[in-house]
Amino acid sequence: MSTPEAILWQGDALHLLDQRILPGQVDYITYRDAQAVAGAIRDMVVRGAPAIGITAAYGMALAARNSPHQTSAGGWRDSLAAARAALADSRPTAVNLFWALQRCDELLARCGDGEHVAEQLLSLAKRLHAEDREINQRIGDHGARLIEGHQTVYTHCNAGALATGGYGTALGVIRSAFRDGKIASVIAGETRPWLQGARLTSWELMQDGIPVTLAIEGAAAQLMRQLRPAWVIVGADRIAANGDVANKIGTYNLAIIARHHGVKFMVAAPLSTFDATLDGADIPIEQRPASEITHNAGQAVAPGGVEASNPAFDVTPAALIDAIVSEAGVIFQPNREKVLAHLQEAEHDRR
Amino acid sequence: MSTPEAILWQGDALHLLDQRILPGQVDYITYRDAQAVAGAIRDMVVRGAPAIGITAAYGMALAARNSPHQTSAGGWRDSLAAARAALADSRPTAVNLFWALQRCDELLARCGDGEHVAEQLLSLAKRLHAEDREINQRIGDHGARLIEGHQTVYTHCNAGALATGGYGTALGVIRSAFRDGKIASVIAGETRPWLQGARLTSWELMQDGIPVTLAIEGAAAQLMRQLRPAWVIVGADRIAANGDVANKIGTYNLAIIARHHGVKFMVAAPLSTFDATLDGADIPIEQRPASEITHNAGQAVAPGGVEASNPAFDVTPAALIDAIVSEAGVIFQPNREKVLAHLQEAEHDRR
Repeated sequence: MSTPEAILWQGDALHLLDQRILPGQVDYITYRDAQAVAGAIRDMVVRGAPAIGITAAYGMALAARNSPHQTSAGGWRDSLAAARAALADSRPTAVNLFWALQRCDELLARCGDGEHVAEQLLSLAKRLHAEDREINQRIGDHGARLIEGHQTVYTHCNAGALATGGYGTALGVIRSAFRDGKIASVIAGETRPWLQGARLTSWELMQDGIPVTLAIEGAAAQLMRQLRPAWVIVGADRIAANGDVANKIGTYNLAIIARHHGVKFMVAAPLSTFDATLDGADIPIEQRPASEITHNAGQAVAPGGVEASNPAFDVTPAALIDAIVSEAGVIFQPNREKVLAHLQEAEHDRR
Repeated sequence: MSTPEAILWQGDALHLLDQRILPGQVDYITYRDAQAVAGAIRDMVVRGAPAIGITAAYGMALAARNSPHQTSAGGWRDSLAAARAALADSRPTAVNLFWALQRCDELLARCGDGEHVAEQLLSLAKRLHAEDREINQRIGDHGARLIEGHQTVYTHCNAGALATGGYGTALGVIRSAFRDGKIASVIAGETRPWLQGARLTSWELMQDGIPVTLAIEGAAAQLMRQLRPAWVIVGADRIAANGDVANKIGTYNLAIIARHHGVKFMVAAPLSTFDATLDGADIPIEQRPASEITHNAGQAVAPGGVEASNPAFDVTPAALIDAIVSEAGVIFQPNREKVLAHLQEAEHDRR
């Protein structure tokens, strides 16, 4: 067994694995228009920063296919504007979404009248999808080299195959390290309120035969004291110019608790997750509905009308991070200077 | 409105508010024998260290009432032994349970043949119950004096009226401080896996008109950075001789995160929570069933057979605690010397 693909293009339609009902049910939902794809991102049918970037690119391809102006530059620009706005509006924190839409914008800017925009956008989406898998394997291998010996590691939420084009970022590091005989066990935080650690990460790891122990977020400090993991390894939704990292709510907790116990902290993410235009304090943090906390399986678990704060992400300061790993290599003890140098070198190597 | 009593003695039976279905349903379950009372403690019909101590004393009174040997010392000693064993075996971490059973043992040791043991045990249980309310009010007033200005505070789990004979320990401090105009708002962690923060604490506070914001444990660091609470205020299940504190899992996380943000950390608990016979590292930590994490409202939310670690409590080291507040006063920056001095002074004042 291995983890099913989160994102499939088949028979002229986009098929998204419905991650809200895993692991009990493995069901795909079919999408043929961009507005519905934006809804799928917002409603968390698909989640994970790289995966929603890829999904958004397929969404743009669907919008172009549905446009009556397949070969008229002016026509498709107008008809794609609404689709682009809906996709950009679906979730605010992960920058990969905007990065993928930017790739689509660049392609559209190069297209002239008479070109088959829909085909070109679909090719771009497929290329971003395939590249993401390779990128994750490179991230995994870079990250695995940082782990010495045979260790317990700690992860949060799901930065796995399901959150990406395949293989995973944080779970990519864990997969590569396990292949190299370096992983004794993984502690997976269940990740309230959506339980991605329980539903997704423990499922992915069990399918690969990697030993995993599930725990509530509340047990983090107790388990770090008892089980002495060598590293906390997480993904990222946006990495700021100053090295601060936005990731699933609970990540900042873990970084503080890891530092307190002398446990190292690694962030694994592709270059498309970096955003050199802002600092951590300026990253927009998505507030999700209170009902995700006040209700459980349709039942109220809190008094009616209670106020709830439900930020979906938090920002971990660079000072608490030991290593950021991208496909271009490792930034140790990240700061503004090192982040910008990493991005410049990667850009230089790409040219 | 005010919070209903967690524990009621009425019509020759013990009535426990079923805290597992609050706040949606306010239902009492009636108990007439000690084995069933032990089951109620284990299954969390009643929870909270002081409340389970009081409940255990009522359980012993029920056992004596059911004994055929109401007035024969030898007879009731035997018939009470099984009841005592079941109650002592119900939950291992909170020491108030053992403290209450010890009070029953002392009473039994003083009773001779011909005495009405059942009546005396019932009187003892009622006295412990009533005393606990007064104790909590003293704890509340001592703790409230530590809060300066008009502040946001942070609490975890439920150390409220529902966890005690009434008024609460941590929530007793918050109630007294609110009465004194010192509380702007309370952040309540939802407290996985049983959601006592959502189900119980936010309900108690709303009934008293105290502004409360519910949040997942994962949001602790983000909210401390944003909302700058002055204090984290929690209860305790056992306070060791060296000042370490066992409390609901997630407390140790909060203590580390609070220290990181310069937020002070207060533990509010009666003297019956102190255990001078051991240090924090030696406190037995209850492991509860994995199904509390792997299942949600009867549905699996994790892959079948996944390993889960479900400690119900953690131990916060004394070094992370700014103040322990009991009915006898405040221990600032607790350590072994100060804890033992506090207990000796309290013992001296009682005589």
